[in-house]
Amino acid sequence: MKKPILPKGTRDFNSKELNKRNYIINIIKDNFSKFGFNPIETPSFERSETLLGKYGSEGEKLIFRILKSGNFLKGIDLKDIEYSDLTSSIIDKALRYDLTVPLARYVVQNQNNISIPFKRYQIQNVWRADRPQKGRYREFIQCDADVIGSRSLMQEIDFICLFDSVFKDLKIDGCKIKINSRKLLVAICDINNCIDKFEILTNQLDKLDKIETNVVKKNLLNSGFNNEIINSLFNVIELSKNFDKNINQLKSYFKSSKIGSEAISDIEYIFNYFSKNKLVKSKLIFDISLARGIDYYTGIIFEVLPPRKSKLYTSIAGGGRYDNLTEIFGLKNMSGIGISFGLDRLYLVIEELNLFPPTSSSSVTVLILNFGSSFSYDLIEITSFLRSNKINAEFYPDSISLKKQLNYANKSDIPYVIFYGEEEKEKNSLNLKDMKTGKQGIFDKKEIIKILKKNSSETEI
Amino acid sequence: MKKPILPKGTRDFNSKELNKRNYIINIIKDNFSKFGFNPIETPSFERSETLLGKYGSEGEKLIFRILKSGNFLKGIDLKDIEYSDLTSSIIDKALRYDLTVPLARYVVQNQNNISIPFKRYQIQNVWRADRPQKGRYREFIQCDADVIGSRSLMQEIDFICLFDSVFKDLKIDGCKIKINSRKLLVAICDINNCIDKFEILTNQLDKLDKIETNVVKKNLLNSGFNNEIINSLFNVIELSKNFDKNINQLKSYFKSSKIGSEAISDIEYIFNYFSKNKLVKSKLIFDISLARGIDYYTGIIFEVLPPRKSKLYTSIAGGGRYDNLTEIFGLKNMSGIGISFGLDRLYLVIEELNLFPPTSSSSVTVLILNFGSSFSYDLIEITSFLRSNKINAEFYPDSISLKKQLNYANKSDIPYVIFYGEEEKEKNSLNLKDMKTGKQGIFDKKEIIKILKKNSSETEI
Repeated sequence: MKKPILPKGTRDFNSKELNKRNYIINIIKDNFSKFGFNPIETPSFERSETLLGKYGSEGEKLIFRILKSGNFLKGIDLKDIEYSDLTSSIIDKALRYDLTVPLARYVVQNQNNISIPFKRYQIQNVWRADRPQKGRYREFIQCDADVIGSRSLMQEIDFICLFDSVFKDLKIDGCKIKINSRKLLVAICDINNCIDKFEILTNQLDKLDKIETNVVKKNLLNSGFNNEIINSLFNVIELSKNFDKNINQLKSYFKSSKIGSEAISDIEYIFNYFSKNKLVKSKLIFDISLARGIDYYTGIIFEVLPPRKSKLYTSIAGGGRYDNLTEIFGLKNMSGIGISFGLDRLYLVIEELNLFPPTSSSSVTVLILNFGSSFSYDLIEITSFLRSNKINAEFYPDSISLKKQLNYANKSDIPYVIFYGEEEKEKNSLNLKDMKTGKQGIFDKKEIIKILKKNSSETEI
Repeated sequence: MKKPILPKGTRDFNSKELNKRNYIINIIKDNFSKFGFNPIETPSFERSETLLGKYGSEGEKLIFRILKSGNFLKGIDLKDIEYSDLTSSIIDKALRYDLTVPLARYVVQNQNNISIPFKRYQIQNVWRADRPQKGRYREFIQCDADVIGSRSLMQEIDFICLFDSVFKDLKIDGCKIKINSRKLLVAICDINNCIDKFEILTNQLDKLDKIETNVVKKNLLNSGFNNEIINSLFNVIELSKNFDKNINQLKSYFKSSKIGSEAISDIEYIFNYFSKNKLVKSKLIFDISLARGIDYYTGIIFEVLPPRKSKLYTSIAGGGRYDNLTEIFGLKNMSGIGISFGLDRLYLVIEELNLFPPTSSSSVTVLILNFGSSFSYDLIEITSFLRSNKINAEFYPDSISLKKQLNYANKSDIPYVIFYGEEEKEKNSLNLKDMKTGKQGIFDKKEIIKILKKNSSETEI
């Protein structure tokens, strides 16, 4: 018989891994709450028409589609249908690609029941049929916080504070929070009379952290940008990286574009706040080459890189402002802004930098050993007594050799075992062994509770 | 534009609903830990061959299948393929139907890394293309605990204690924990020389809580059971419902069947324990008519009905022993037993019986009101100060009318607001208003922290 295997790009998680993942998730959740976000959840799949047409052509290819249930070929003549028509005939649902489009759908659908601005967080799985690689899977958890219904730039500042606060609590020092405004990329096209090439520009800039600058320049040249434009583009990118110093030059570059001048003011408003109120753990960097692949962003965008000492070069968080997302579903004037933490990438960084607190793979404090079937009711009773005193306890269900039972305790990371045989039964007492120190002693039930409670309150995740 | 809608049988959850759902989930989790179970998680979808053929023909129809990604029709000639072959050619994955088959797959795949007996809990979504109705959805959370690798009946007792403990913590009084052994149903067929009709028998018994007894009897008659067998079957069902009184008659009924006698001993072993150690909140009832629809059960089975005063008549939890599930994947002698709580059904019962603790729809303690853009940096600073003192706080991002801002606080269930305008800025103080009592006063920052901390520590879910 063939051993079963997992679908490509998916994973099982054991207790130890889950404890570490939950350590991260809980810190993110606590910060989301602290910043005034409340949770919502949406279904894993949405109707096809909700998801399709929102992520650009590259994104759309990665969406997992679900076959109609029942007789999905009902009314379809296979001999008389085009390949392209078949897909839309046999599927009507697809798995979530991100948490932002479902949020837009949620806001439109619940517009009469929610308070505006609507601040929500959502921590759920998303699915993408991407090529799996380090830190990239086909099923992964996104941790999103968004505000919908306000254009205030105070939100942009607040989200930068939120990034910093999460990294502080995770003890990650030195993340780079890159920001840009998509409006500046529009302005560059505006100034250079090539607004028709906006998508080509953002696509190429988006590749800068993956391929060499010269290749990107060549691609831009081949796409119809002339050398003068390309040089001025890369010049303004360099200027942007030291905003405080080059602010006047940047203002002058964008002064002929209304949208560009506005966007530079936005950046200035944000940087001004942080010149007085320093970030605790992270560094804020303006970078005009930041583009973000996703179509729906219209204003300030974020991308967070891990500390320099980490080997992971891809982003661990990102986000941005989107002015028109709910409009797709029929609700206008609902500018939104949000950020997303990638759990898997954060996990890799925290593991690499050795920042996880000590983790146990078991939450069990004590195992009651099994000395034969004549004790079985007693064992269950003792275990019940311990549990009713808030001790996590289990009995060994079979009377196999003591050595094997102790092996089980060791392998399972259980710190204490209790021996309960003829002698203990006679004395109405329990024989407790500390598996780490090897110390052993006979106690009555009340004493046992005291010892075990002290142990189980020790801090571990 | 058409307003977007949700896929059939799926739901969004707002904060208030999620808080209630998490209240239940946390109690179940705490109990799973207390009883020695540790968490695992498995992917949302499995390879088709892992899931198919495990749930009986009725179950199989309800599995959601996922289209192969990329060009799923590659190499397929639509003009030359049978309907029945097309499905298996274009899908290779399916959404989880339950958490038990993925567990069996997990155990086989990780057999060298896990301790046996393997005790795990898993709280994740499952998906079934069922007809939606009250308490039944197409995406829903199951809360499962299982032990794999021990045949000990101590586990059966322990799971009954676990049910009772969860209901105690949820304050649900009077659940009926029904038990039976699938071996007794085999024995009945055995005794009556109709072992070939085992599946028909279990299918019909499974319908007893949905359709009338006489109809079931008629169905059995039509399926080849004669009147004598049917009468003796319903006679022994009646006897079972008062086990303590009728134990000798039951023993005598099953004495000619080895498997039947063993199963009666099993029931006796379990009842004996609970005759001394009473359940706290629930009632244990033996019922030979309990069959459970799922194919993989082989021994003791459980089904829990809500208290009589609830209007919900369907089960809120269930489970049982399965001897051969890992064998399907190539690992023999790994008897397993597990239980599952249905979150939605529990929610309905707790809501109906008014047992949820007070719930807030917001975790925010205080909103800082917005008196115009000249205060915006101050507002962010004040908010940051409160958050650094562990107060969940948010500012209002736009300087709209105070009335609208106060409306937002009210609608969002935020207990306090802070006024910060010219006067407060001059005095370097904050004007705090309690939204419930209407009381208002001017305080310095330290005093504010004291007041708000006291409030946010009040117990709410």
